[in-house]
Amino acid sequence: MIADTFSFLESRKGLILETLHGLPDLSGSRGEESLERIVEFCSRGKMIRGCLVFLGAQAAGILPTNQWHAVEKALPGVAAAMELFQAGLLAHDDIMDRDLTRRGAPTIHARYASEAREAGCADAAHLGEALGICLGDLCYFEAYALLERSLAGLPRSGEMIGLCSSVLSDVAVAQMSDVAWGAGTSDPSEDEILAMYRGKTARYSFSLPLAAGALAADDPELASALSALGDGLGMLFQIRDDELGLFGSPAETGKAVGSDLREGKKTLFRSRLLGSAPDTEQDRLQALFSGESEPSLEDLSYIRALSERLGIAEGIAALSREAEDKSRAILRGLHSASSETIAVLEGLVEYVTRRDK
Amino acid sequence: MIADTFSFLESRKGLILETLHGLPDLSGSRGEESLERIVEFCSRGKMIRGCLVFLGAQAAGILPTNQWHAVEKALPGVAAAMELFQAGLLAHDDIMDRDLTRRGAPTIHARYASEAREAGCADAAHLGEALGICLGDLCYFEAYALLERSLAGLPRSGEMIGLCSSVLSDVAVAQMSDVAWGAGTSDPSEDEILAMYRGKTARYSFSLPLAAGALAADDPELASALSALGDGLGMLFQIRDDELGLFGSPAETGKAVGSDLREGKKTLFRSRLLGSAPDTEQDRLQALFSGESEPSLEDLSYIRALSERLGIAEGIAALSREAEDKSRAILRGLHSASSETIAVLEGLVEYVTRRDK
Repeated sequence: MIADTFSFLESRKGLILETLHGLPDLSGSRGEESLERIVEFCSRGKMIRGCLVFLGAQAAGILPTNQWHAVEKALPGVAAAMELFQAGLLAHDDIMDRDLTRRGAPTIHARYASEAREAGCADAAHLGEALGICLGDLCYFEAYALLERSLAGLPRSGEMIGLCSSVLSDVAVAQMSDVAWGAGTSDPSEDEILAMYRGKTARYSFSLPLAAGALAADDPELASALSALGDGLGMLFQIRDDELGLFGSPAETGKAVGSDLREGKKTLFRSRLLGSAPDTEQDRLQALFSGESEPSLEDLSYIRALSERLGIAEGIAALSREAEDKSRAILRGLHSASSETIAVLEGLVEYVTRRDK
Repeated sequence: MIADTFSFLESRKGLILETLHGLPDLSGSRGEESLERIVEFCSRGKMIRGCLVFLGAQAAGILPTNQWHAVEKALPGVAAAMELFQAGLLAHDDIMDRDLTRRGAPTIHARYASEAREAGCADAAHLGEALGICLGDLCYFEAYALLERSLAGLPRSGEMIGLCSSVLSDVAVAQMSDVAWGAGTSDPSEDEILAMYRGKTARYSFSLPLAAGALAADDPELASALSALGDGLGMLFQIRDDELGLFGSPAETGKAVGSDLREGKKTLFRSRLLGSAPDTEQDRLQALFSGESEPSLEDLSYIRALSERLGIAEGIAALSREAEDKSRAILRGLHSASSETIAVLEGLVEYVTRRDK
C-alpha cells in the first residue's frame, strides 16, 4: 500500500520539475543564475509537498471534463509553488541553523560562501549568508508569482493566496520559537511544542498542499477535511520523527545514533520525560538532553527503559493511535474520492506512522 | 507645490497606520509580539510608498460612486501591504549590511540581539540575525495576506499579486548584485548600475505603488503610464541621492560628509569618474572611492572640480534633465487626473529632482 502511495507521488515529480524548468527568465545574468540555483535545489528534494497537491485535487473526484482540464493545467504550477516556498524556507533555515549540507550537497549559503572564498572575498561567510537571504526571498516572490499565474481564471485563486500566506506566517512564527529554544533562551511548554508540531509540520507540510489541491479543484469542503487530515498526518509524522531521532537505526535514517540528543532538540518526548523523571535521574537526563556529551548506546537504552517505566512511551503511543484513528475516520468520510485515491491516502497514514527512515 | 505634495502624502499615513494596527492576531504570544514589532517598525517610517498608492488611485479620476467606494475601502490595505514589503526588505537588508540603527532606533536584528544578550544568550548576535530573518519573512507573508484580503472582489487582484511579485523578484536580484559589489567581488558596469537604479529605486519605490493604486482603481492603462513615470522619478531620485551622498550638507542630510565615499557605494557618478579620469588621478580617486580613508572637504572639492573638468557632472545633469522632461511629458498625458492630482504629481517630480535631504 505504501508502495502505491510512493509511486503515485513519484509520478507527479516530473510535472513539477517541468514547471520549474519553464519558469520565465529573471532579468540580467544574476537573475538567470539565481533561478538556476533555485531549480537545481528544488530538483534535489523529494517534492512530497508538491506531489500532495495532486493528491488533494484527485480526492475531489471527477469533475466535468472542461473544468477538470483547467484544474489539471493549474496543478503543476501550484505544486511547484509549494516547492519554491519550501526552498525559500530551507535557504533561510540553513543560515539560522548554520547547516552546511542539505539534500546531499552544500546548502545555498554555504555554496555562495565557498564561491566567494574562491573569488578571494575577505568576508565570504557573511556574503554567503547575505546572498542566501536574498535567494530565499526570491523563492517566495517567485512562488507567489507562479501561484497567481497558475490560478488565473480559476475561482479560488484569492483564497489560495490567503491560505498559503496564513500558513506561512505561522511557519515563520514557529521558526522563531524554534531558533529561540535552540539558543537556550527559553524552554518550551508541552502546549508550545504541540503548537510547533502543528504549525511547522502538520499545517505546513501536509494540510496546506492537500488543501491547496482541493481548492484548485474548487472544493472548499474537501479542503477543510484534508486540512484536518493533514493535522493528523503531521502529528503522526512528528511523533515518529522524534522516535527515529532518538532510537532510529543509523543505517536506516542516515543520522548518527541519538541525533536529537546531540542537537538538543526540544521534543514532546524530552519534555514529558524531564517533566516526570524523579529527582535522582534529573542530572543524568539533563546532561544527555543538553547535547553536550556524545550519547552512547547504553545511554539510549537507559532513556528507553526509563521512559517505559514512567509510561512516557505508552502515553505518546496513545497520542499517535488517537491521531491515526482520527485520520482514518476522516478518510472514511471522503465520499468524492475514488477507492484508488483513498488507498493512496491510507498508504500515507501508514507511512507517516510506521516509517523507519 | 512640494508642500502640497507632502501634505497630500502625509494625510494618508493615518489610514495606513490604522490598517496596520488592525491586522488580525497571529497565533501565540510570539505571534502577537512579532506583529507588534512589525507595526512599530513600519510606524517609524515615512510611508512614502504606501502613500503613493493613494496618489496612483486618485490619478484615475472620479469613478462611479459605488465602484469608487470599493476602491477606497481597498486602498489602505494595499498601501499597508507596500509598507509591510518594505519592512521585510529592510529587516533583511540591515542584516546583510550589518546596520545597527534605522529610523532612529535599533534595527530589527540588532534589537533582537540586544534582548538575547540581556537574557544571557551566548550566541546573541547570531540569534538576533536568525530572528530578524524570520521577522522579515513574516512581513512578506502578512503583506500578501493583506493584499489578498483588501482586493477580494475587485477585478484586478490577481494582476496586483503578479505585479508585486515580479517587482519584488527584481529587487531581490538587484540586492544580490548590491551586496556582491559591496563585498568587492565584482565592479559593476554602467549598465548594471542603471539596472540597479531601475530595479531597486524606480520600479520598486515609485512605479509599483503608483501602478498598484491605478490597478486598484481598475485602470491598467493608467498603471502603465504611472509605471513609466515611476521610472523617471526613480532615476531623478537616485541621481540626486548620489549627489547628496557626495556633496550634500551634513546638516541637511543627517549623514557625514561624503558618506557615499565612506561606504564605497558603486554609484553612476563614481563609475563615470573612474572611467574618464586620466591615469595621473587614478590612484587618488581609487583610494578615495575605496572607502578606506576618511574624506576631507578638500577631497570633495577635488572630486567636484575634476568631475566638472571631465564633463561628468554635466553628463549626469543631462540624464537628469532628460528624465525630468520625460516625467513631465507623461504628466501632461494623464487625462483622467484632476488638476489638483497633477499638481501633487508635479510636486513629486520637483521634490525628487531638487531635494536637499
